[in-house]
Amino acid sequence: MHQLRQDRTTKEWVIIAAERSKRPHSFRNVSKPPSEKPLYQIDCPFCGGNEHLTPHETLAYRLGGAPDSRGWWVRAVPNKFPALSPEGSLERKEEKGFFRMMDGVGVHEVVIETPAHNQLLSLMDDKQVEEILVAYRERYNAIREDPRIKLIIIFKNYGEAAGTSLEHPHSQLVGTPIVPSNIRRKLEEAARYYDDHGCCVYCDVIEEELSAENRIVMDTEKFVVFQPFASRFPFETWIVPKTHQASFGLISMQDSKTFAKVLKETLFKLYSKLNDPDYNFVIHTSPIRDEMEDYYHWHLQIIPRLTTPAGFEMGSGIHINVAFPEETADFLKKE
Amino acid sequence: MHQLRQDRTTKEWVIIAAERSKRPHSFRNVSKPPSEKPLYQIDCPFCGGNEHLTPHETLAYRLGGAPDSRGWWVRAVPNKFPALSPEGSLERKEEKGFFRMMDGVGVHEVVIETPAHNQLLSLMDDKQVEEILVAYRERYNAIREDPRIKLIIIFKNYGEAAGTSLEHPHSQLVGTPIVPSNIRRKLEEAARYYDDHGCCVYCDVIEEELSAENRIVMDTEKFVVFQPFASRFPFETWIVPKTHQASFGLISMQDSKTFAKVLKETLFKLYSKLNDPDYNFVIHTSPIRDEMEDYYHWHLQIIPRLTTPAGFEMGSGIHINVAFPEETADFLKKE
Repeated sequence: MHQLRQDRTTKEWVIIAAERSKRPHSFRNVSKPPSEKPLYQIDCPFCGGNEHLTPHETLAYRLGGAPDSRGWWVRAVPNKFPALSPEGSLERKEEKGFFRMMDGVGVHEVVIETPAHNQLLSLMDDKQVEEILVAYRERYNAIREDPRIKLIIIFKNYGEAAGTSLEHPHSQLVGTPIVPSNIRRKLEEAARYYDDHGCCVYCDVIEEELSAENRIVMDTEKFVVFQPFASRFPFETWIVPKTHQASFGLISMQDSKTFAKVLKETLFKLYSKLNDPDYNFVIHTSPIRDEMEDYYHWHLQIIPRLTTPAGFEMGSGIHINVAFPEETADFLKKE
Repeated sequence: MHQLRQDRTTKEWVIIAAERSKRPHSFRNVSKPPSEKPLYQIDCPFCGGNEHLTPHETLAYRLGGAPDSRGWWVRAVPNKFPALSPEGSLERKEEKGFFRMMDGVGVHEVVIETPAHNQLLSLMDDKQVEEILVAYRERYNAIREDPRIKLIIIFKNYGEAAGTSLEHPHSQLVGTPIVPSNIRRKLEEAARYYDDHGCCVYCDVIEEELSAENRIVMDTEKFVVFQPFASRFPFETWIVPKTHQASFGLISMQDSKTFAKVLKETLFKLYSKLNDPDYNFVIHTSPIRDEMEDYYHWHLQIIPRLTTPAGFEMGSGIHINVAFPEETADFLKKE
């Protein structure tokens, strides 16, 4: 029997298409050979030794040495082809009195995860992933000081199907001068749940998922990893902190290291069980002015790019998921 | 300068990334050879002569002959692997008192656009496209009689990048037992605009786009074709009826033929200028109980699949469009 399931955090429905469903192992990437990328590529702007190919760094972890020189292990730089950039005004304009627009003001940075061209986040040392997460935190907190920035989105695109254009390991931060309408709606739904139940919907989701047990991928002291009841995509995986916290910016140094370990282990599970799938991940966090709210709760979503949303999704906003999260979570959990 | 533009119908922002932008001709599919598909394929369930490979037809245009026999030119059948299906109850259930779900009740049909395996909608005779649109209308009106169906989505997925699994020309209708939240929001925005301005936002969009002129692809007596001010994707193209009408189901027989001609010509422009791009199209129409509303207005959106939405889009809902609709509309218009 097909099912419609509702995500309690967004009220969005998904179709779990039972009769179309595929067994979890069938999502494994059978045709992908082991990667044979070089350690260094002469024209890659993110490779160690090519620092002159990027704009000036905004962060680097290195022992001594000048800015924009070799010797770093994590480095952040402004995106050379930014989606949003610092110049311009926040003023909203109307073209011909009807079409609303504003300058594309904002911040767009790249976190270069390693100087080595051929490493993968899912296979790095825990220590290295910790440093990357600490860099996210540091750049988040620096960008939030710009009063024009309303929301900061941290994300990673890995592989061609996930929309990446550069293969060197990197993630990105974008600070936007607006709170987009679909983030506003996530907040509104969370606020409504808080009004109705007196507690945070994400806190309740964690509790209920832990109690249901069958979609849990990993349960640690500080974080829960699960494939949600209303997963939109096969192997969609969420990492949620157990302690209520609206903003990723409020994470402690210690917790960001713990988070790194959990993220790395989750990505490694996906890597090994699905043979290096393309994926996106994104950290959903409160807008900057709502960082202390009781009703929102930051979380990370990993979306392996295993299927292609099509006209039905575009027309309805309802995703068709051809896998049961109960089955994929079980598959991922098994040694 | 980068721009943020707002869609007046949804309040959603898009980024038009000027410095990343590509010239319209660079989206042309240079590597695609002319298609060499056969007229008939023995294992294709949609080919003329293979009627026994599908469930029983719900519609066929043929001169005489028994149901499920040869000789048709347009045929509709239930989807053999439906996303939603007629059995089940509308009752909402809660698993463990928290996780909301219901049976996947609904209708999922395929409109087979031609018995010939190797034809393309964008290259068919006008007459054939008319018949297809008349079939959409007929099946829409039949499905809407089912009191369990709240919304009917008509769409087409063309090509692998657009998520299709079968290459034989076909489109689809899905009737859902719910009004999805993002359709509800489109309606709410339209209703709010109606409250504020006393008229339909889509009627105003047509008028303003016609007056701005530079994004118009085609202006006919009954329909306007344009690439909207806040296009989310390169070459995103809308076809909107000039006469206010909330539901596609209300289109007259005559207008559905005119609509067919305009759709065909628009698809042909995309085909010839971009060399047969993969695309989705979807007819946005009011939920069935809102078919007579003054504030909503049905329209068709064509999305060529030329770029890949990635983590930023997933995290923010803001699309980054690397082309100016003014430039792509101009490119499409030129002979």
